[in-house]
Amino acid sequence: MSIPSPIPHIALSVDCVVFGLDDADLKVLLVERRLEPYGGEWALPGGFVHIDESLEQAARRELSEETGVTKLYLEQLYTFGACDRDPRERVVTVAYYALVRRGNYDVHGASDARRAAWFPVAKLPSLAFDHAAIVRVALARLKAKVRYQPIGFELLPTKFTLTALQRLYETVLEMPLDKRNFRKRILAMKLLDELDEWEQNVAHRAARLYRFNERKYRRLTESGFNFEV
Amino acid sequence: MSIPSPIPHIALSVDCVVFGLDDADLKVLLVERRLEPYGGEWALPGGFVHIDESLEQAARRELSEETGVTKLYLEQLYTFGACDRDPRERVVTVAYYALVRRGNYDVHGASDARRAAWFPVAKLPSLAFDHAAIVRVALARLKAKVRYQPIGFELLPTKFTLTALQRLYETVLEMPLDKRNFRKRILAMKLLDELDEWEQNVAHRAARLYRFNERKYRRLTESGFNFEV
Repeated sequence: MSIPSPIPHIALSVDCVVFGLDDADLKVLLVERRLEPYGGEWALPGGFVHIDESLEQAARRELSEETGVTKLYLEQLYTFGACDRDPRERVVTVAYYALVRRGNYDVHGASDARRAAWFPVAKLPSLAFDHAAIVRVALARLKAKVRYQPIGFELLPTKFTLTALQRLYETVLEMPLDKRNFRKRILAMKLLDELDEWEQNVAHRAARLYRFNERKYRRLTESGFNFEV
Repeated sequence: MSIPSPIPHIALSVDCVVFGLDDADLKVLLVERRLEPYGGEWALPGGFVHIDESLEQAARRELSEETGVTKLYLEQLYTFGACDRDPRERVVTVAYYALVRRGNYDVHGASDARRAAWFPVAKLPSLAFDHAAIVRVALARLKAKVRYQPIGFELLPTKFTLTALQRLYETVLEMPLDKRNFRKRILAMKLLDELDEWEQNVAHRAARLYRFNERKYRRLTESGFNFEV
């Protein structure tokens, strides 16, 4: 019988990749670090996990403290554990990600963040640690995810046009979609209820409004979606 | 300017959910724990991460030490961090999972494992810690994954019948599939090369053999698969 060796302990952090949409583009929420290492540089909001909080609680606390953002659906992304990813010592980080509508949040830097701001995913500044790699993994996951889970329920107004929904998908996927093909596929999923209402106050011909069928939306979110683009 | 607080440190472990297939059923590789806590109980192979190894290195080392299993594709599953998941102290665990052909591996308990053995997923013994929940998450991930990534390349012989491929999917999904529908969908993906060869030494009418088109297989693995069942 061997003698149990002492349990090793490692610094554990959380980092949050919050993607923010509006009608035109996809951005990521970053903070300017107040402290060393990487003082004055941009990074993902995050910090060390306290011994008495769950990983998701830590992610929510750090995001709230550093950016003011609360009340969002955070999903665990991946755990990054390369031995040399932090210059201080070994730090393993559990990354979370979210997709929100930017207009719903008022962001402001505080605590360890001198500033907080949205940056276009295509034009990120140089990032601290391995945060550029974490953003890349999160973006790939987000794009893969919209193929097997519908999006839009929390991101569009209750009633919307098919053009608005297409623009949402185009923004997340960062690519143009064929209008006829998009409509055919989305309508075939019976995800939407067609309303006898049309958009108001537009110069062009008013487009029909749709609404998500919440039951069908929830079912597709759980069971798989298969949206091929 | 606040003074940086000391960095908290937490015990970090890895656990491996290795699913093993043969022609008939899906099993999970478990070890009987030699040490407390949960001494004498079954658990996932795993252990603490050393300060100088990556998370995947730790998972491979523990799996090899406790079961003799090496040379397999391990994918990160999820990180479980509830504060009370270990009776000793706070332990956060990064879970990995894999799907292998059981016949390719000779398992034997060693190190902290008194025994190592395969258990049918439908008939698991009571498991230590939150390992039953980890297995459930892994099984759900595996079933979701076969819908957007093809399986079989490392799990079937080079040449196989459509019946053998269907049986593989049925075993992983733990549900029967309609034969005609399965064939139609699989062939439509152009994932397979049809051979002018037939199975040998069978009592029934010999079935045609197929082979994976490796280029197409790799492409579908990366880009998404959309296998609806």
